[in-house]
Amino acid sequence: MNDTTHAATQAGGLSSATAERARRHQRARETICELCRLFYGFGWASGTGGGIAVREGDVLFMAPSGVEKEKLQPADIFELDLAGAVTAPPVAGGKLTACAPLFMAAFTHRDAGAVLHSHSVNVVLAAALVPPGEPLRLTRLEMMKGLEGVGYFDTHEIPVVDNTALEHELAERMERAVLDWPKANAVIVRNHGVYIWGRDASHAKTQAECLDWLCDATVKLHSAGISHLTHDRSQPRADA
Amino acid sequence: MNDTTHAATQAGGLSSATAERARRHQRARETICELCRLFYGFGWASGTGGGIAVREGDVLFMAPSGVEKEKLQPADIFELDLAGAVTAPPVAGGKLTACAPLFMAAFTHRDAGAVLHSHSVNVVLAAALVPPGEPLRLTRLEMMKGLEGVGYFDTHEIPVVDNTALEHELAERMERAVLDWPKANAVIVRNHGVYIWGRDASHAKTQAECLDWLCDATVKLHSAGISHLTHDRSQPRADA
Amino acid sequence: MNDTTHAATQAGGLSSATAERARRHQRARETICELCRLFYGFGWASGTGGGIAVREGDVLFMAPSGVEKEKLQPADIFELDLAGAVTAPPVAGGKLTACAPLFMAAFTHRDAGAVLHSHSVNVVLAAALVPPGEPLRLTRLEMMKGLEGVGYFDTHEIPVVDNTALEHELAERMERAVLDWPKANAVIVRNHGVYIWGRDASHAKTQAECLDWLCDATVKLHSAGISHLTHDRSQPRADA
Amino acid sequence: MNDTTHAATQAGGLSSATAERARRHQRARETICELCRLFYGFGWASGTGGGIAVREGDVLFMAPSGVEKEKLQPADIFELDLAGAVTAPPVAGGKLTACAPLFMAAFTHRDAGAVLHSHSVNVVLAAALVPPGEPLRLTRLEMMKGLEGVGYFDTHEIPVVDNTALEHELAERMERAVLDWPKANAVIVRNHGVYIWGRDASHAKTQAECLDWLCDATVKLHSAGISHLTHDRSQPRADA
Repeated sequence: MNDTTHAATQAGGLSSATAERARRHQRARETICELCRLFYGFGWASGTGGGIAVREGDVLFMAPSGVEKEKLQPADIFELDLAGAVTAPPVAGGKLTACAPLFMAAFTHRDAGAVLHSHSVNVVLAAALVPPGEPLRLTRLEMMKGLEGVGYFDTHEIPVVDNTALEHELAERMERAVLDWPKANAVIVRNHGVYIWGRDASHAKTQAECLDWLCDATVKLHSAGISHLTHDRSQPRADA
Repeated sequence: MNDTTHAATQAGGLSSATAERARRHQRARETICELCRLFYGFGWASGTGGGIAVREGDVLFMAPSGVEKEKLQPADIFELDLAGAVTAPPVAGGKLTACAPLFMAAFTHRDAGAVLHSHSVNVVLAAALVPPGEPLRLTRLEMMKGLEGVGYFDTHEIPVVDNTALEHELAERMERAVLDWPKANAVIVRNHGVYIWGRDASHAKTQAECLDWLCDATVKLHSAGISHLTHDRSQPRADA
Repeated sequence: MNDTTHAATQAGGLSSATAERARRHQRARETICELCRLFYGFGWASGTGGGIAVREGDVLFMAPSGVEKEKLQPADIFELDLAGAVTAPPVAGGKLTACAPLFMAAFTHRDAGAVLHSHSVNVVLAAALVPPGEPLRLTRLEMMKGLEGVGYFDTHEIPVVDNTALEHELAERMERAVLDWPKANAVIVRNHGVYIWGRDASHAKTQAECLDWLCDATVKLHSAGISHLTHDRSQPRADA
Repeated sequence: MNDTTHAATQAGGLSSATAERARRHQRARETICELCRLFYGFGWASGTGGGIAVREGDVLFMAPSGVEKEKLQPADIFELDLAGAVTAPPVAGGKLTACAPLFMAAFTHRDAGAVLHSHSVNVVLAAALVPPGEPLRLTRLEMMKGLEGVGYFDTHEIPVVDNTALEHELAERMERAVLDWPKANAVIVRNHGVYIWGRDASHAKTQAECLDWLCDATVKLHSAGISHLTHDRSQPRADA
């Protein structure tokens, strides 16, 4: 290979890598918009609520604050670096979500590929059944197996932190919970909603769906007069 | 610029302003139809129920009465002036909504850009938990922050007026509530539904979504044996 | 006009009337399919359940039995005369609904333009709260005004007949209820569903939507510990 | 017919039969994808949950494990023989569902044409009301008639087996239940979901819809303080 060919190939390679990177970034922006529409349909992002952040390589993409999530377009998404600093705001403007520092806790400490913030009423209600200072406990529900690293006979604990009017206080609580509960991939904020993450956007989405199902079942069991901790009416296990 | 050019420019300007005005009016009519389809999907406008009014400059647009809201077309919408008089009925006829005087209370006294009337069963049920003569009180739910000017630790009050078979009586009650509760951007009508408004159609829609979420949570907390006023099980605030 | 012209005009008139009649018949078939898809989405016609009959002039159109209602096509619909005899079965075959005699009660005795049979779980549950031999009573819910001829302060009664395994017994009960309760445009079948009618398909649909809303509210009030008969917590009426 | 013609016809016939077989196989794959999207919408297959298997002649088609069911494409489906051995994995890879041995119980012992596994929260909750070792009993609900071979006045029993973390144990329990309860076309797995089958995919789907409706009604009756076994408040039967 002579020098000219080498330079041309190198340029072509760079150009191709740049194009591929642009394609992946555009795909991340589109994924956020798709998930926002889906979550709006679930009632998790009504009234401008909820939020989504996706990591693609060394770039974070975040839905903006205070807008109707179901109407987001790819150009409306913020770009941040891995330290959480905005590197590219949307061309048409917009406000960065106050959730950004909370999303960062999962990106920084848990290597999340995507973090979702949902206002699922099922999660809020399930947490309302939990005494102060205690986590939400889930056990003996098959859907738990959809949560990363959790088994059917486990008592899986998801931290519940108190809500606060001050976002920086909430960010501290979220970070502490993320560090204190390494087996959980979610932090519930009492009377507010949940932050939940996964290795990529699809995985985070399925985690959120499983948790919603589990909280729905928990609340309905409670309303039927059955504790979600002692609800298992099966006979004792042979190995118990 | 000579006189001829001036006249042409002026004519062009007028023509352009007229065209722009027509576009904005058409857009308001389309917005009403879109919101009606959305609200039908939410169960807020089933059985010809519900209603929507949008202000565009000095013109009010209102969905007609007694028709299936999810099937409305832009040509079916009424035009009124800011005093509430019909200036252009739909070409194909139709009946002005009996809600018109109730919509006017929010346009006149609160400078609303859009007013929605929903038959949300969640709102009706939450109001059924409220003693006579008292407002619906909401506190310690993050979704409250979606309501205009409301904070998480506030006890936000939304007036509940009694329903009546006579629309003019209801209009008077609505007007009084609008004046008496300046911090609320909604008036609930017991056993009936809610009037809720915002600075434009999108804002009114997000207000309605937040209130619906809050009432859903209120009723489900109640059914789970938890009061929506003392439901917050977090530890006392440091600043309390 | 000479005889030849007269004959041609008459033939043209007949041909045009025939075409118009065919268009209206096709439209009735399409309406049934659209409503079946809508009702399937509401959960009123799941598992091949539910049924719809529409009158167009002197012809009745009925959805077939035992098929997935959301997949119906216009060619699948039965044609009957006003006495309830099948005049044109679907080309591809199919089974006439066992509801046919029940639909006929509303067509014959109440001049219905369309009759819907829904398996709304809300209606079934509301009826489960009603003591044997008594009708479902509704009062002080604005949505009642969506039902034909009913006012807010009325106590509106909808007959509840017992279910039976034998369709001919049910047809007799339905006919008796239709005659005995002339103010109601619906008959609820205990543990089964509801027959509800209106002057045309749109009207019947809105009646079904209103009743479903009213039964939803009734059951949720009950679950919240509030009777749907004494739920109205407003102050006494001035005229009471 | 001479030999040459005969050979050509035979070849044509074989070719045509092969094409028809390929069409039917492709249709089975598409049906699985359609049903997965439908069930995701019902909340029966959220978070990668649920599963579907369809028999087409001597081939079984099964949705893969651990993927978002609502996004499945025909090429993602596994092919197995009637003994349950994989004959053609998806070209792009994938993991066979751990449900496969459970599906086989219905194919082998009950001649099912399709088997569905749903995570319906209604079914899980209804089963939570059932004491250990007992089946779910259903009676006096018209929707029971949608279940194969069940009448309104029957007390229909659907076996409830305990869940287990070990799939092979669950397969044994499922097989035993399939053999022990020949009148039921479903096996509920406590705290998990349900396996339900029919003579083809449409039939299995309608069976699942009916069971979901019945469990929804059962749980809501319970929450309203009414037993689903003694809920029938009709007057005694003349023939009772």
